[in-house]
Amino acid sequence: MKPPYFAVIFTSILTEETQNYNEMAMEMERLARKQEGFLEMETARNDIGITISYWKSLSSIEKWKKNFAHAKAQELGKEKWYQSYRVRICKVEKEYDFKR
Amino acid sequence: MKPPYFAVIFTSILTEETQNYNEMAMEMERLARKQEGFLEMETARNDIGITISYWKSLSSIEKWKKNFAHAKAQELGKEKWYQSYRVRICKVEKEYDFKR
Repeated sequence: MKPPYFAVIFTSILTEETQNYNEMAMEMERLARKQEGFLEMETARNDIGITISYWKSLSSIEKWKKNFAHAKAQELGKEKWYQSYRVRICKVEKEYDFKR
Repeated sequence: MKPPYFAVIFTSILTEETQNYNEMAMEMERLARKQEGFLEMETARNDIGITISYWKSLSSIEKWKKNFAHAKAQELGKEKWYQSYRVRICKVEKEYDFKR
């Protein structure tokens, strides 16, 4: 992907109420990948979870935030699954990579 | 942290040669935390590793990249530990959070 584009860094700590969390996370990833302006998603979890989604524009991020199914998932997340989370909206200005 | 500030998103896939990797990663985190302009670091690893460091300015990121011990660690990483990696330099424009 050639900068500039945008990244949403979502970091979270889960509660002990994990029922249906993985199913919902997978469903939201499936749905995000279908949105207009979606570029890529990367995720890893140990003590904290980090999910980064990459988007063509701030308006595509805004639309995804307001997507009906996603908004419902966000509500459930606050009720049940997340002890805490943080969302950071970023502009990716530069990138480089290494491959063996 | 109040935006704007900067984030370095480092995503990587390791080789099977993992000797000394964890020690070096911990040493680099310890060292990064002492650099001028360092704000925070978050990391998680499953299939891929994601490490995000947050900085006050692009110049503090540039200085850390060129730090002697860090530059040596980067060389070793390319020789031994990383199958591939990607570095993205980002400007954090907005953030919000949730706490239970």
